[in-house]
Amino acid sequence: MNTSEKKKLSIISFSGDFDKLVAAFTLASGSAAVNYEVNIFFTFWGLNAIKKKKGRSFIGKGALAKTFGFLMGGVKNVPLSRFNFFGVSPKLMTFMMRKRNVATLSELIEAAIALNVNLYACEMSMHILGITKDDFIPEIKDVIGVASFLQYSEGGDRIFI
Amino acid sequence: MNTSEKKKLSIISFSGDFDKLVAAFTLASGSAAVNYEVNIFFTFWGLNAIKKKKGRSFIGKGALAKTFGFLMGGVKNVPLSRFNFFGVSPKLMTFMMRKRNVATLSELIEAAIALNVNLYACEMSMHILGITKDDFIPEIKDVIGVASFLQYSEGGDRIFI
Amino acid sequence: MNTSEKKKLSIISFSGDFDKLVAAFTLASGSAAVNYEVNIFFTFWGLNAIKKKKGRSFIGKGALAKTFGFLMGGVKNVPLSRFNFFGVSPKLMTFMMRKRNVATLSELIEAAIALNVNLYACEMSMHILGITKDDFIPEIKDVIGVASFLQYSEGGDRIFI
Repeated sequence: MNTSEKKKLSIISFSGDFDKLVAAFTLASGSAAVNYEVNIFFTFWGLNAIKKKKGRSFIGKGALAKTFGFLMGGVKNVPLSRFNFFGVSPKLMTFMMRKRNVATLSELIEAAIALNVNLYACEMSMHILGITKDDFIPEIKDVIGVASFLQYSEGGDRIFI
Repeated sequence: MNTSEKKKLSIISFSGDFDKLVAAFTLASGSAAVNYEVNIFFTFWGLNAIKKKKGRSFIGKGALAKTFGFLMGGVKNVPLSRFNFFGVSPKLMTFMMRKRNVATLSELIEAAIALNVNLYACEMSMHILGITKDDFIPEIKDVIGVASFLQYSEGGDRIFI
Repeated sequence: MNTSEKKKLSIISFSGDFDKLVAAFTLASGSAAVNYEVNIFFTFWGLNAIKKKKGRSFIGKGALAKTFGFLMGGVKNVPLSRFNFFGVSPKLMTFMMRKRNVATLSELIEAAIALNVNLYACEMSMHILGITKDDFIPEIKDVIGVASFLQYSEGGDRIFI
């Protein structure tokens, strides 16, 4: 690693489970706080974290895409990767996080944005799911493919979550 | 990272879910296309992607291994990591990928092979599951363990999918 | 990577599935065996691997935390990430590993400890789940946060499992 440049960490946020998003954003904010350049590349289920509509809606082009869009929902619908109990557990987990004074998922996302973490959306999965940049929060810097991701993340670590 | 050598990316393909295999092979082909040396090390569920028999069959030594082999199936049976609906979703997803002119999983695997991505199979998981190199497509370069994987992937990034 | 220093590999053990723990500890022991410095940072479900009580118990502060603690259980209750069949499969898998003379999960954990793999527990997830260092095996070196993890893992690869 080149020590003269800023340290860099790039996260491929694929899974979009509540607990894995908490892990991704904790790592991202924590790294940005100690002066790392941090990139998050949201792809597939991970796109849920950055949708403008936080609940369920029929976004996407075509009936199948709309159905997947509804099933996936937004950041309020992300499931726990285990013991999800039809969506009850992420709410309980948020309650536990509040009680312990730990930042919740939405606070972690806000912190990442405030700390200038670069947020990118994956062009190909958006294409498959029929969604566009307009479906995302305005803080998304760009819609990119693998080649640009490799370029932006070069010289640092790449982590798939 | 040594800039005089070719850039390198190594993927541990563990999960073997349809969507995660799409992610792994997209990253692999995309990286190989911009002149990275790419290695994929298939282990455990990931071995499904490289089985010769694309459907279900009783491969493996011993009754338990055969049962697991049947349950795991081949690349045609890989589930979606979420909303699998008894295997319907990977088919719908392939349909959506075709409709949007995005490469399907089997096309992505072919592309990776055409772009000289190095495919390796994990010795230990083959041993546990009782399967041999003959059960895989001929493009598998070698059957290796952790030490060789570390050696081949040295000087580049390692990503676990 | 600095070639004058010892090679380094750091694993974020998040998932805590039986098969993913086997993968994490195989990679850790294999790397330590060829003289890598290896760190494992246990977070969230991954904490199950290092709990003192290997079975289910009501550890944690508060009713909700206790319920999660019971559901999560210890290393004897970690599920297979697929085909878990209510916990039967990890037992079958252990049987298959024994039969093939492959190290089982508990043997892999012992090997990692014997090979001086550094084991760390994630402060924030312990806080959310209401568990303390006393709930873990004594081999846990320290309870740390993101900043310390970044520091300890610097100059080597970081892998999220």
